[in-house]
Amino acid sequence: MIYQPIKNFMRMAIDDALVNFKMPTGGPFGACIVKNNDILAVSRNTVLAEDATCHAEINAIRTASRMLGTFNLENCVIYSTTEPCPMCFGAIHWARISTIIYGTSIEDALNAGFNELTVFTQTMKQLGNSSVEIIENFMRDECMELFTEWIKTKNNITY
Amino acid sequence: MIYQPIKNFMRMAIDDALVNFKMPTGGPFGACIVKNNDILAVSRNTVLAEDATCHAEINAIRTASRMLGTFNLENCVIYSTTEPCPMCFGAIHWARISTIIYGTSIEDALNAGFNELTVFTQTMKQLGNSSVEIIENFMRDECMELFTEWIKTKNNITY
Repeated sequence: MIYQPIKNFMRMAIDDALVNFKMPTGGPFGACIVKNNDILAVSRNTVLAEDATCHAEINAIRTASRMLGTFNLENCVIYSTTEPCPMCFGAIHWARISTIIYGTSIEDALNAGFNELTVFTQTMKQLGNSSVEIIENFMRDECMELFTEWIKTKNNITY
Repeated sequence: MIYQPIKNFMRMAIDDALVNFKMPTGGPFGACIVKNNDILAVSRNTVLAEDATCHAEINAIRTASRMLGTFNLENCVIYSTTEPCPMCFGAIHWARISTIIYGTSIEDALNAGFNELTVFTQTMKQLGNSSVEIIENFMRDECMELFTEWIKTKNNITY
């Protein structure tokens, strides 16, 4: 059965990304992990405050794992405001998350000035022989607004 | 100038991986990050104790970033007992590490029972248009010994 995405979960990821506009923690990215429609984690990107691994998706996986007490997040769904980069796709694979739902694309992040590896989730899925389900362009307009507002922000830092 | 790898740094990564045989924290993997031949981090895999993102390389990047107080690890070198997976390759990219040195390959890890995505560092470098330098098969025999011993270990858990 194909997972039917729920707007409220992406909305929470977007709202957490918006928090980053008000503090110098990282970029305009948010993620939310749910299991059976229970929220396990809502996280933002904290690269500038912590380290390069602290993308929203990685932070969400870490929190969700602490919540469940295991590295194994099978039957979980991750909502991400932007297409997961290869690091995050790899983490989603290792955590056994079943479904990825994202708004804007890696190309959109490149256009906003981020130094993305140009390896897309569909490429990673195909090359890596992964069974993860990918739902693209979910609430893309609302997620794109994050980049639009970010670019207008004074002293925004890309990396 | 091509970086000349130093055996002692890989030895430290191997020794830290060996610690994992004696406690149920994770797999037979270790990593070491150096800058100007100063050691910033020596880390082991702690997936079973923490979460799926806790590969040795990710743990080492986090520690090295805390040491330097920045996400930016440019001019750093990472020694890894096994070829970095796509998650770790992505993290190395985002952290701006200049050189990857590894012993055994992703295929060796597959053969030891780990659920690797079959996307190799050279593929990631090429597709992602990355400038990272990759040195393969460094101290491969010593690193392979980790898998040999791991497979013999009672109650070893792959993931």
